Order: sequence, then C-alpha cells, then structure tokens
Amino acid sequence: MAAMERRIKLTVAYLGTPFSGWQRQQGQRTIQGELESALARVTGAARTPITGAGRTDAGVHARGQAAHLDLTHGPPVERLAAVLNAALPAEIRVRRAVEVPAAFHARRSARAKLYSYRVGWGRPPLPWAGLRRAHIDPPRDLDALEEGLRLLTGRHDMASFTVPDPAQGPPLRLLHRAWTTSSPGRLTVHFLGAGFLRYQVRRMVGLLLEISWRRQSLETLRGLLAQPSPGASLWTAPARGLTLERVYYRDPG
Amino acid sequence: MAAMERRIKLTVAYLGTPFSGWQRQQGQRTIQGELESALARVTGAARTPITGAGRTDAGVHARGQAAHLDLTHGPPVERLAAVLNAALPAEIRVRRAVEVPAAFHARRSARAKLYSYRVGWGRPPLPWAGLRRAHIDPPRDLDALEEGLRLLTGRHDMASFTVPDPAQGPPLRLLHRAWTTSSPGRLTVHFLGAGFLRYQVRRMVGLLLEISWRRQSLETLRGLLAQPSPGASLWTAPARGLTLERVYYRDPG
Repeated sequence: MAAMERRIKLTVAYLGTPFSGWQRQQGQRTIQGELESALARVTGAARTPITGAGRTDAGVHARGQAAHLDLTHGPPVERLAAVLNAALPAEIRVRRAVEVPAAFHARRSARAKLYSYRVGWGRPPLPWAGLRRAHIDPPRDLDALEEGLRLLTGRHDMASFTVPDPAQGPPLRLLHRAWTTSSPGRLTVHFLGAGFLRYQVRRMVGLLLEISWRRQSLETLRGLLAQPSPGASLWTAPARGLTLERVYYRDPG
Repeated sequence: MAAMERRIKLTVAYLGTPFSGWQRQQGQRTIQGELESALARVTGAARTPITGAGRTDAGVHARGQAAHLDLTHGPPVERLAAVLNAALPAEIRVRRAVEVPAAFHARRSARAKLYSYRVGWGRPPLPWAGLRRAHIDPPRDLDALEEGLRLLTGRHDMASFTVPDPAQGPPLRLLHRAWTTSSPGRLTVHFLGAGFLRYQVRRMVGLLLEISWRRQSLETLRGLLAQPSPGASLWTAPARGLTLERVYYRDPG
C-alpha cells in the first residue's frame, strides 16, 4: 500500500536577525534551509521542499509566514509543530501545522499579506527590546507621513520601489490599507496589500520617513506614483524593522 | 602638553545570542572584541584594551556588565556612549560612560554581582520573546528548589560546580542571597554573590531544576556542598537563560 501523501500548511514565526533571509542558499543559514533540514531529520526522509508564501529578505522577521509541504512519512500532523520545534533553532518556531487540500499553495493561494514596520527614537533600547525595531531620528511631520500612506493606498505601478526582476511579473500592486499605530517614542506602520514587490515596504517606509523629516516631499511621492521610475534611488529602511505579520487565504486554515 | 589620561567606566548591555562570549578571540565575534573595535574607530587611536568585570560565556546576556578603559584621545565622556553606540552592532549597547578615579578596576574593585536565570514552559514563545529564557519542562517541586537555594546561600567550596582553572583561584565563593520570582509559566532565579566561578550559576540552576523534576535530590546537593567533588557531572543549564544583571562597586559610579 502506497503511503498517503498529505499536504500540510505551516504557520511560522522567526526572528530574522541571525538568518540570511527565507530562501535556501548554499552555505548560508536561512529559514527555508533550517526548516527543510529539521523536516528531513524528523521524518528520516530525503529533503522535502517547503514552499513559502513569499521570500523575506535577510534580517526581516515573521510572526505569521505561511508555507506548504507534502508529507508521506513522518509524525501525525497534530504533533508535527512540536516535533519540528524540537529540531529547530529557537529563533524559528512553527506555530501551527494543519492538513490542507492538495490544491492549496502557500504562494499562489495567498490573497493578501500584512506587513508592519516598527521604528523607535530617543534613548536606545536594551538590545533584546529593539530587535524588531529600527532606531531612527524622531519623525517631525507625521501629518505628511499619513498623507503619504493615503497616496500609496490603491493599485499603483510600484516599479520605483523595487529592483528589476522578471520573476516578479508586472509591477502593479494593490495596497488595500495602510495605517499607523504609535506610543511615546515609537511608531508602527502597517501595510495590508494583495502582494508586495521586493524591498517595496522598506522603500515606501524609507520615503515616508524622509518626508516626515522634510528631506523629501510629498511631491516626490506623487511623481513616482504618477510616473514610475525604475531604479529611483530611494532609501531602503533597515530590515530589522520589518515583520511579515500574516498571510491571508480564502479559507481559514 | 601630554594628553590627560582618563579612566572611564562603561556599563554595557548585550544580547549574547550572536556572540562567542565576552572575551576577545581571534576570528570570533565577541563583546570585548566589538567594543574594542568600535572604540578604535571612534578615537582613531590604536586598540585600547577594555577590561570587563568578568567574562560571560558564549550566549550569555548582560543588562549591566561593567568595564573600564583608559582614554587619552577621543570624544568627551559625556558623548562617549552615544558615539560608541553608533559604531556598535545593535546587540550591544553602552548604557553609561563615566569618568572614575584611576584606581578603579572593573574586575578587582567589584564587590558583588547579580545574575538572573530565566526559564519558561508551556507553549513555546514567539522567537523574539524567548531569547533570554530557557524553555524547559514544567518544574514540579518548587519547595525543593527553594530549599536548594537556601542550602546554596553562604560561603561554600563550589568546586563541584565549575571546571578546573587555576586562574579562578580557590573555589570558595560567597552567595549573599538567592531568590525566585515567578509568573504563570515562568520562573526567574536570582543570585546575588561576591563572585561566581565559571559555569557556577548555570550548574546551580541545572541541579535545582533537576531537583524540582525529582531527577536529583536535595541530598545530592547537600553532599556536593559538604564534600566538593571537582568534575561532578552536573547539567549546565543553557546559556540563553542567563543574564548578568548588575555589578556592584563600593562607590556608586
């Protein structure tokens, strides 16, 4: 009797600091690489590929990255998260493992993603408190930053905010909603969108912060949205501030 | 006119995770190495040695490690912390820099040290929440653990809890006070002592946890204190749970 193949969806949290990003790379510690090694150890099978909803860059964190894989051997799905966590470094935690229909695909089935970008200013935080926050000069014009978020919302050609890469397809991206939350000395910018280009969030944040410092103007942003300028030299805000909070699918799971 | 030499005391916090401990080592990222490199960059002088109050092992954290150095060049002491922090990785923060009398010595002048060891159990924490905590099985007998802390308090030959090292001198060590604090799913053990041998805190904690799990008995602990057994095979609790909280000196500074 052939073993049943089960498609499994994982929800994964990680601290990006010690890793060279999501994608497996020879000789580098990556999230995908660590997950696939841990899976091989716990199933005793050859390496099973794990497909993520998207590739996060070096140093970027995730609270709710999603991924799928196909298992024939290995522990029951109810125990998979615990068994994987015992084999993973503590900077990566599988929060959830559930069986999903074979048609589920972590990247292609994804409907939306929520990213957050955290900044802080003032007295530098204790090292363990500031791992997911970029330490910056205090923003000055928060109204302009908010206006920038309004301008970015909607469907736009975001070619100015990424690097040329044919694999990304056309650079049109739909940003559903963008908003801020804040507390004294801290600001978080949230982006809920159908999808994002490489570096897009960090470059949107970089430009918004520069607008808040009055080193750039809202006119620059309006111009880049009206007339995309691939290769525009925009500041990419540091990876440490960025967290992939959640990936949304049509069916909860 | 010869430049005035100033002795400076630094108070340093660090996340131990990415470092091979305090002490400078060729080809390794260490706290001392990073501090000395940063200092050389900001003063433009040759490498100035920085002397710590003690050496923390690989993976061990500090909230208030102390160190001293002698400066002839370089920024005014009021600006030194900010200037060093700009040159340091975010996992190391200089919290304070003050000028002290030339007789001050970070190690030899230290009167006491406060260490804390954090454990947690239950659902694994998010990766950024658990960096300074060892994830363990739930302790069972907390009364026995508390009794163990009482036995450890006072002056004892702690040779059973370290590794042979002539540089450490005689293995008598005075533990002033040891106590626990807790919240649901978490326990912190605090140790205030005149000094500690290498691995001593982690091996005291290891034995106390094993006593709480009833894998070891209080009799074992009483025996090791009454009749020290160098090379006793004690479990060294993981480095990630240990934080050097503070170093105490006679004069505040």
